[in-house]
Amino acid sequence: MSRLDRAASIADLRALARRRLPRSIFEFIDGGAGGERTLRDNVADLEAIRLMPRVGVDVGARSAALDLVGHAASMPLVLAPTGLAGLFWPDGEVLAARAAAGAGIPFCLSTNSVASIEEVAAAVPEVERWFQLYFLKDPALMESMLARARASGYRVLCLTLDLPVHGRRDRDIRNAFTVPLRPRIRTVAEVLARPAWLAGFLRSGVRFGNFQAAAPQAGFTSIAQHIARLCDASADWATVQRVARSWGGPFVIKGVLHPEDARRAVEIGASAIIVSNHGGRQLDHVPSAVAALPAIVDAVAGRTQVILDGGVRRGIDLAKARALGADACMIGRPFLWGLASAGEAGVARAIAILREELDIAMALLGTTSLPAISAEVLVSRDAPVLDWPRHGACSSHAVQSAWRRG
Amino acid sequence: MSRLDRAASIADLRALARRRLPRSIFEFIDGGAGGERTLRDNVADLEAIRLMPRVGVDVGARSAALDLVGHAASMPLVLAPTGLAGLFWPDGEVLAARAAAGAGIPFCLSTNSVASIEEVAAAVPEVERWFQLYFLKDPALMESMLARARASGYRVLCLTLDLPVHGRRDRDIRNAFTVPLRPRIRTVAEVLARPAWLAGFLRSGVRFGNFQAAAPQAGFTSIAQHIARLCDASADWATVQRVARSWGGPFVIKGVLHPEDARRAVEIGASAIIVSNHGGRQLDHVPSAVAALPAIVDAVAGRTQVILDGGVRRGIDLAKARALGADACMIGRPFLWGLASAGEAGVARAIAILREELDIAMALLGTTSLPAISAEVLVSRDAPVLDWPRHGACSSHAVQSAWRRG
Amino acid sequence: MSRLDRAASIADLRALARRRLPRSIFEFIDGGAGGERTLRDNVADLEAIRLMPRVGVDVGARSAALDLVGHAASMPLVLAPTGLAGLFWPDGEVLAARAAAGAGIPFCLSTNSVASIEEVAAAVPEVERWFQLYFLKDPALMESMLARARASGYRVLCLTLDLPVHGRRDRDIRNAFTVPLRPRIRTVAEVLARPAWLAGFLRSGVRFGNFQAAAPQAGFTSIAQHIARLCDASADWATVQRVARSWGGPFVIKGVLHPEDARRAVEIGASAIIVSNHGGRQLDHVPSAVAALPAIVDAVAGRTQVILDGGVRRGIDLAKARALGADACMIGRPFLWGLASAGEAGVARAIAILREELDIAMALLGTTSLPAISAEVLVSRDAPVLDWPRHGACSSHAVQSAWRRG
Amino acid sequence: MSRLDRAASIADLRALARRRLPRSIFEFIDGGAGGERTLRDNVADLEAIRLMPRVGVDVGARSAALDLVGHAASMPLVLAPTGLAGLFWPDGEVLAARAAAGAGIPFCLSTNSVASIEEVAAAVPEVERWFQLYFLKDPALMESMLARARASGYRVLCLTLDLPVHGRRDRDIRNAFTVPLRPRIRTVAEVLARPAWLAGFLRSGVRFGNFQAAAPQAGFTSIAQHIARLCDASADWATVQRVARSWGGPFVIKGVLHPEDARRAVEIGASAIIVSNHGGRQLDHVPSAVAALPAIVDAVAGRTQVILDGGVRRGIDLAKARALGADACMIGRPFLWGLASAGEAGVARAIAILREELDIAMALLGTTSLPAISAEVLVSRDAPVLDWPRHGACSSHAVQSAWRRG
Repeated sequence: MSRLDRAASIADLRALARRRLPRSIFEFIDGGAGGERTLRDNVADLEAIRLMPRVGVDVGARSAALDLVGHAASMPLVLAPTGLAGLFWPDGEVLAARAAAGAGIPFCLSTNSVASIEEVAAAVPEVERWFQLYFLKDPALMESMLARARASGYRVLCLTLDLPVHGRRDRDIRNAFTVPLRPRIRTVAEVLARPAWLAGFLRSGVRFGNFQAAAPQAGFTSIAQHIARLCDASADWATVQRVARSWGGPFVIKGVLHPEDARRAVEIGASAIIVSNHGGRQLDHVPSAVAALPAIVDAVAGRTQVILDGGVRRGIDLAKARALGADACMIGRPFLWGLASAGEAGVARAIAILREELDIAMALLGTTSLPAISAEVLVSRDAPVLDWPRHGACSSHAVQSAWRRG
Repeated sequence: MSRLDRAASIADLRALARRRLPRSIFEFIDGGAGGERTLRDNVADLEAIRLMPRVGVDVGARSAALDLVGHAASMPLVLAPTGLAGLFWPDGEVLAARAAAGAGIPFCLSTNSVASIEEVAAAVPEVERWFQLYFLKDPALMESMLARARASGYRVLCLTLDLPVHGRRDRDIRNAFTVPLRPRIRTVAEVLARPAWLAGFLRSGVRFGNFQAAAPQAGFTSIAQHIARLCDASADWATVQRVARSWGGPFVIKGVLHPEDARRAVEIGASAIIVSNHGGRQLDHVPSAVAALPAIVDAVAGRTQVILDGGVRRGIDLAKARALGADACMIGRPFLWGLASAGEAGVARAIAILREELDIAMALLGTTSLPAISAEVLVSRDAPVLDWPRHGACSSHAVQSAWRRG
Repeated sequence: MSRLDRAASIADLRALARRRLPRSIFEFIDGGAGGERTLRDNVADLEAIRLMPRVGVDVGARSAALDLVGHAASMPLVLAPTGLAGLFWPDGEVLAARAAAGAGIPFCLSTNSVASIEEVAAAVPEVERWFQLYFLKDPALMESMLARARASGYRVLCLTLDLPVHGRRDRDIRNAFTVPLRPRIRTVAEVLARPAWLAGFLRSGVRFGNFQAAAPQAGFTSIAQHIARLCDASADWATVQRVARSWGGPFVIKGVLHPEDARRAVEIGASAIIVSNHGGRQLDHVPSAVAALPAIVDAVAGRTQVILDGGVRRGIDLAKARALGADACMIGRPFLWGLASAGEAGVARAIAILREELDIAMALLGTTSLPAISAEVLVSRDAPVLDWPRHGACSSHAVQSAWRRG
Repeated sequence: MSRLDRAASIADLRALARRRLPRSIFEFIDGGAGGERTLRDNVADLEAIRLMPRVGVDVGARSAALDLVGHAASMPLVLAPTGLAGLFWPDGEVLAARAAAGAGIPFCLSTNSVASIEEVAAAVPEVERWFQLYFLKDPALMESMLARARASGYRVLCLTLDLPVHGRRDRDIRNAFTVPLRPRIRTVAEVLARPAWLAGFLRSGVRFGNFQAAAPQAGFTSIAQHIARLCDASADWATVQRVARSWGGPFVIKGVLHPEDARRAVEIGASAIIVSNHGGRQLDHVPSAVAALPAIVDAVAGRTQVILDGGVRRGIDLAKARALGADACMIGRPFLWGLASAGEAGVARAIAILREELDIAMALLGTTSLPAISAEVLVSRDAPVLDWPRHGACSSHAVQSAWRRG
């Protein structure tokens, strides 16, 4: 049995990735904003939920298939848009897309990918393709992105709203993380100690594939500088609506935690809301994604699909999200750890682990299909409480109530 | 004083077992499904309960005796069915049964034992014998098991319902645990470093004693493969009822957490419900056994006995279970740690520790018999809360309520 | 500055004691019953309470003096009865009594002391003396103890009710702790590595000073064996009342957690109730002393004094106990750590630390006397909750309610 | 990039300070009273608060400016009065004041500064200056302090009420911390191992700059002795009012946790209430500053400004304080760690980190000015609860209620 076969869990893939990547690159994946409380909350809040099993049910035949934004998927999972996947393994975006195709789930390409819109589409034409876009300062550049994605057969546009400015990621600041890597002594030592990664990197290099023509990069650029140069902090809901119309096809809104924002997304015609705090990478001390989920499910009231992004580490998390009203989940770090461990096979392993864990969970919950996983299976134990003042007036009574444990 | 005499607690026996067993075998006992949260909850939730002592009561004479499924027991304890006990010490099942007989408590043989139904009965005819059965795909094989158990004087049938599929136990996957052990370099090194265990193993070998004729084993088989080959994921309550009728004698239902399932078990005539999550080995993130207990006691309403399985590590846990309405407890790992430490003497020591701890607890609680341990002795401090939507409709309000701390 | 002067807290004295005592003796002081949860709860529950300071109050003159069971004390503190104090420092009981006298607080001698009733009285006639008594099987022996204590001027009898049987202290079992110490290799090595302690021990030896004539000791005796031989598990409230009458003078009842038991103690004329779980040394998993305090204060309703025993590690704990309705506190381990560190000076240091901490706390709470420390100063944050079924019937609803966090 | 540039957070500055300062000096900054629970609560309670982000808002232009006690500030931050800043870096008070001036925020000089009232004013005339005063036993000395501060252009008087006696700081007692440092072997070794600090110290020395003439220091003085010699434990609200009148200008009251005390401060004309437990340095086991904040905001009802002091470690803490009704925050340790790391540049770095973190937080919360940060952004998760008996009568029911989690 290979090391990959003996990786029993997503955590095991993370351990493999840690051994192969230079530390500052591993921490670019692993880290989050500030003190990483929200990052940990994402995982811990999902983990704290308990589900109630049933017995004496015929669970001989099970399926986790569903329709996702109008397209069949084999399980309720989407590979999230993640920047610089090609930095972790040569052709990272292409290999991840290929693993997604093999698993029958959608792949969402990031604006900040290494492989370009066209390269991924050409290499993996069979994958269900989504394209993620930030709001760019240059309207022409933004339009050209949309046109390129449309032309390359990306079916769904994913508009990310939670990045008007780039989050402050302490570990990247400490590591002086840039593209290309800043040649500090410690960084050089790390890199030389990881020859497998280095060989791949020397073969393929790294760049922001979608910006090659438009914005030639100079020198050592931190991600925050890249974002500040290109992205528009003044984009508002009117901007969102304009871009969505320009796209024409189905679109989803990513980065929503507040139910009012979810309602706005519904009103402008989104096909799905992605409940997300950007994997804890933007603002530390915001609620976990799963803590924000129920109020958004309530606000959306079935008018769009809801996708949970953040904290998924186990197949049963997909069942938990479902029980709380989500249609599916997105994963970022889990598939990147697989990618960094073993390329396409690693991504496939990450998806297979989640699929098998979900399948066993469904059997032991006494359910044979996703619709059967209702709120009935939820039990609470130390689960988080989310509440806040519902009235505009900031009375101190409201503050105190908001502040208390339910 | 010997090491066994200085083992003050079940935890001390675990430490002794850890020193004698190869790691992958120790972890087969010790581990659970997934991230082992439910396994830890089983222990922690019991531990979190506090009992209120009374003073000024004559506690000079005390007894923990009771009637268990129609048979006298010296204390509210049953040795749980556990697979492969013979792997931890030669003739493990026989020695454990003998210790149970010596202590005046029932012994429940597992379908997946090393010693066969007949061997245990022949070696320890004086023990109160229960036989545990999974639902097998092959009806003839299942009938023959029942016939063999009846013929060998097993009085009670224990039907395990929470294993339609085998749980995903991360440690066994990581260890590539199989029967026989897969000869990996690390495994061989571990085994050679444990000569005491190895000598016993070479003398007696290991097999699934009850399946010798029916299902000759080939090559390296994981427990999950063994279960998948033999067990029937489509067994439902009708199947349960059919098997119970075929047995004829008293039967108990093991693996129930949901009160509705307990009610079904009552309806088909079970003599006892064993509240269990399979020691946290099947589905991680389900409630602890003790958290599920009160609602089941409520549902059963005295129509059958209730046995708590999972998390018992101290004699006072038997009093806690009693105070919450259970009649008795099952232990698995605690007696296996004793067995792996010192064979029959180790199992006897495990039982003796629990007995002495319970006896002192009864004296200090001001109680001299089990019926005196009522809900009156319960006090709460950080005890777990179990609640879930009681109505079929999955309203988001119900979700939020379910999700909050009581 | 000496090491003792730089001991800023009771915890620092504990660290000093740990360096001077052989491990099995240090653990005899430090350890508790079972897994030591109640022992930790005693400390943690007190620590979790928060008090609200006031400013702008003239706190130039402060006093912590009070009347305790009819006798003036300089602060709300009593040295608790503790077995074998003479084992930790030669003449331990005498030195502790002398420190108590110097500090103007009562000293309570244990039945199981090394120095006898008469020796302590003769050496420190000026100390306010209490005598603690267990219920002995031999009525003549018990009467003789009472007579000796009366004759030696012990003013208050302290009847301990929570020791019908001896608790199971895992560490003592693991250490094979006996009197005299069992000469195991590890024990001998420990002792030789602590020459300061050994020299004192060789000079003075150790015995149960009050039982010399009555019960000559043979061989290696564990404390549990000593108790089992002498104490009477069938003593009930009638026995308590009989002994109290025989004593004639003021008596206090030690070892009460249940308010009903406190009411019984009031009815038979106790001068004070000592709320105690025997320092977590008898039954693990009972409530902390402070968690049990408010209900007892309520039950007693001012008819006797109330003393909190268990968990006091800081001067502010005396203020917390006061705010919750206690009149004073007892300390055991804190003064023993001082004693084991530096004899009388160490006990004096322990008392002085608590006195200075209490004095500063009173000043910063804006209070200048004990009566000023009312429930008004209490604020809650993660404080423990204690609740249990108030009705006799063990309905499962009551169980669930009891089980929930308030 | 320098080490200071790669300090991503206040915690990183603390790590730098730890490497440069002798241990007993680092611990003088870092430590608190007793077991340092309140110190940790200050940080943990702020950290536990969660804020809800909004998206789709134009956040292109943002400002954190405000008016603070009648003077414009660039952000809601004040450098707190801290004793002996000049001990951590030569001319510490002057450099910190200069960094404050550069950042456009107020600097508050401590009575116990190394640099005198006049020295700071002369060196940094452009900084908005506050002067902190204790209540001194000697009325003439107190008047002269007020006169000197007035003469040197300090605009706001900060009256500290929570130091009638000096708190008991265990680490300072353990370290035998005095001014000058007591020459113990360990201390000398520490100091010699920190040559950078030592060189600066030898160049500039240390003294209580404001007491040079009035109270010549002799020998080794602990801070507690210094306070006991000079400060008046009998000052009450009448004293406070008298001093405030004598000052004439705007004054703020520091060290209030109880809402009644806040009301008193309002009544005597304070311009701001500083909610503070003296950074956990006075009385351990009092509520965290942030836990006390909402009730004080309520009591003050907009009649004065409210400043939170204690626990601020992240820019988002400024937003949290704002959402809970505070106008601004004070920081002590965070700027001292910067000062001890790199002098003025270190203080500037500390302020810059908090400013950038706040700016990003505002953008991601969808707010562009301080008034936009209302209670609407608050969500709760494990946030602390503060409650206490509201009625004078100390009924045990009130005690129990007070004691429970809300």
